[in-house]
Amino acid sequence: MQKNLVVGQSGGPSVAINASLAGVIRAALDSGKIDTVYGMRNGVEGLLTEDLISLNYLNRPQFLAHLKATPAMALGSCRYKLPETDQEGYFRRIVEILHKYNIGYFLYIGGNDSMDTVKKLSAYCTEHGHDIMVMGVPKTIDNDLMHTDHTPGFGSAAKYLAVTVDELIMDTDIYFLQSVTIVEVMGRNAGWLTLASALPRFLGKERPQIICLPEQPFDEEDFLQQIHTAFQKSQCVLAVVSEGIRDKNGDYVGASFQNGVTDQFGHAYLQGVGKYLETLVRERIGCKVRSIEVNLMQRCAIHLASRTDLDEAYEVGRRAVQFALEGVTGKTVVYRRVSNRPYRIDYDAVDVERIANREKKVPEKWLDFDDPATIREILDYLLPLIQGDVPQVTDAFGLPSHLVIPKE
Amino acid sequence: MQKNLVVGQSGGPSVAINASLAGVIRAALDSGKIDTVYGMRNGVEGLLTEDLISLNYLNRPQFLAHLKATPAMALGSCRYKLPETDQEGYFRRIVEILHKYNIGYFLYIGGNDSMDTVKKLSAYCTEHGHDIMVMGVPKTIDNDLMHTDHTPGFGSAAKYLAVTVDELIMDTDIYFLQSVTIVEVMGRNAGWLTLASALPRFLGKERPQIICLPEQPFDEEDFLQQIHTAFQKSQCVLAVVSEGIRDKNGDYVGASFQNGVTDQFGHAYLQGVGKYLETLVRERIGCKVRSIEVNLMQRCAIHLASRTDLDEAYEVGRRAVQFALEGVTGKTVVYRRVSNRPYRIDYDAVDVERIANREKKVPEKWLDFDDPATIREILDYLLPLIQGDVPQVTDAFGLPSHLVIPKE
Repeated sequence: MQKNLVVGQSGGPSVAINASLAGVIRAALDSGKIDTVYGMRNGVEGLLTEDLISLNYLNRPQFLAHLKATPAMALGSCRYKLPETDQEGYFRRIVEILHKYNIGYFLYIGGNDSMDTVKKLSAYCTEHGHDIMVMGVPKTIDNDLMHTDHTPGFGSAAKYLAVTVDELIMDTDIYFLQSVTIVEVMGRNAGWLTLASALPRFLGKERPQIICLPEQPFDEEDFLQQIHTAFQKSQCVLAVVSEGIRDKNGDYVGASFQNGVTDQFGHAYLQGVGKYLETLVRERIGCKVRSIEVNLMQRCAIHLASRTDLDEAYEVGRRAVQFALEGVTGKTVVYRRVSNRPYRIDYDAVDVERIANREKKVPEKWLDFDDPATIREILDYLLPLIQGDVPQVTDAFGLPSHLVIPKE
Repeated sequence: MQKNLVVGQSGGPSVAINASLAGVIRAALDSGKIDTVYGMRNGVEGLLTEDLISLNYLNRPQFLAHLKATPAMALGSCRYKLPETDQEGYFRRIVEILHKYNIGYFLYIGGNDSMDTVKKLSAYCTEHGHDIMVMGVPKTIDNDLMHTDHTPGFGSAAKYLAVTVDELIMDTDIYFLQSVTIVEVMGRNAGWLTLASALPRFLGKERPQIICLPEQPFDEEDFLQQIHTAFQKSQCVLAVVSEGIRDKNGDYVGASFQNGVTDQFGHAYLQGVGKYLETLVRERIGCKVRSIEVNLMQRCAIHLASRTDLDEAYEVGRRAVQFALEGVTGKTVVYRRVSNRPYRIDYDAVDVERIANREKKVPEKWLDFDDPATIREILDYLLPLIQGDVPQVTDAFGLPSHLVIPKE
């Protein structure tokens, strides 16, 4: 009897996760070795309540293309962490459900936290002799997974940031007056997205003059000095700043300030680092200053997705199925870069325990943004990832249409 | 002897202003009646210092297309208000410079404040018998100009907001938990852009459930009640909110709160209404809540411009030249809608004093968002304005390229 496959999505959204889902559906059903592709709603949370839906109806070119052009997660997500042991019976329960639905392949699309689920479940199945292949399909806009050249979702977010910062460069340089613009970019611990937002400068523009990554300790006086220096050449200063920058003691920048900020009722008040630095510049330099949080747009702007990214994300889903069908388990698919000119990658599978709960940072040798050799390396790395546009599926009103998997 | 023409840009940027500039250049130089099109840098501020540049070199199809695909203001901007009388000699000085450069036509691309410059300068020229035609070319993303169906720049910002809110709808509904997302949209006094950001709902989606325009007094308890009501049907609540909403006393929402917010050093702390409402929801409802300021992206995202908007903005520039050449002065070009199906507009010129320093608000009859007839009217009005994509000019690296007019 043929087996079935179950696939879930977990962690934070991006524009590439549904492309991987499309690749999984296509490869599974075209293999001739799988009867039904089940989707679990809200990741393992839905699996535990048997909230499963057959996705076989999606295996048509127009549906798969529509799914690929849909941001976020068509199956919903969760932030569920499986326990370390099976004392509470979660693993046994999962395996019971997988058996009940005759599922031999468990695919999980997620970031480093979700790979923890793949690691634990695959270990449990192997240990207990369950014939279930458990494979990870990577995704994260943060690009912080180990042992892969880059991650699905990163290229599109990088493209959004490069294009948006370039547009902001045009918008903020129109008045005859000194101004500072601070763009706050996602990335708690790794500065990949902030690096991408500096692409206009790496490609020869003057701005952003200031680039602050979490990989470098942040110093307020040095930041203010960089602004003064930049003002000597230009009336418009642009700084791109990771949300996760920290001072030399390892504290998030502005954290102590935030703790002191309360309204008249004494309520604590939360803000991002961009707003904090805006206040700092206003107080200490006094020029026109504005902070911009690129917020969720950097991870859901499918209209500006990188075709390279979405094509690769689709392929990563296909490869995960192929590995699982070959009997591979406890691994996740990764990209290996073969060459830059022409850009070419290969796909491989690595042990998920080498990836789960770890983070890849921007290498230290790439932090000298004034070194032409460094810039060439960064460009060689980043530019191929943001190439190509993705055709949008539009509705009768001329607006983008997104595929919704019905909840019933 | 033939005359020359001078054109300037003033006020806040949008993605359509350079399209109008392209239309001006083309129409002027193709008329055979104008020798040189001068651009003034930073509006009348640059004119007063004779910071003029010949734009004739731009009159080639590829340059004009590139200019049209460039956001913000290629000539720079100013927020300069001419005095009420010529006591200080500003008008005399302007006219001297215009005579010196043999300029017979003065075109000014701007919003309601900039039209004040057109009004005063045209009145001065007429009164003193100077043969200089002064014409306004409208622009503002806010859509708040009187006596025109809509404004150049609005359609593109509207499209950006509709598409972005639709993407945010996908991004924010992935977890199995109640959440509130508040999107803060530009518009100090008129709610046109917030209306556009609600397009996904008007087109049949559940969200945004809450729409707050400056045209309606805002009540915090009512806002919280709307969230509770929305939670009865959906776990995800989305609110689109104009930056300029006010309470029943006419005070900006959150203003009193803001005045009370200081850091530990007693520094005043500024925030937008979205952040304020986020704090309110966190304190009073306690669910997951996030605020998103769409910030400058809504006015500079040329990659998502409306082709209709940019084509019309180009034509408005052309028409302004034609009117000026016909001896019209002290007027601004406006759109008159001829029909919705097919969508068709005409161009006309109205006295600038009927437009300067005034604001057009969303009509009261459009504020009942539960009335199907109202929704149909809103859709008939908005949808034609956001149609069509604009081909981007890309550079050798696959990123959008913008035209820069050299400063020297």
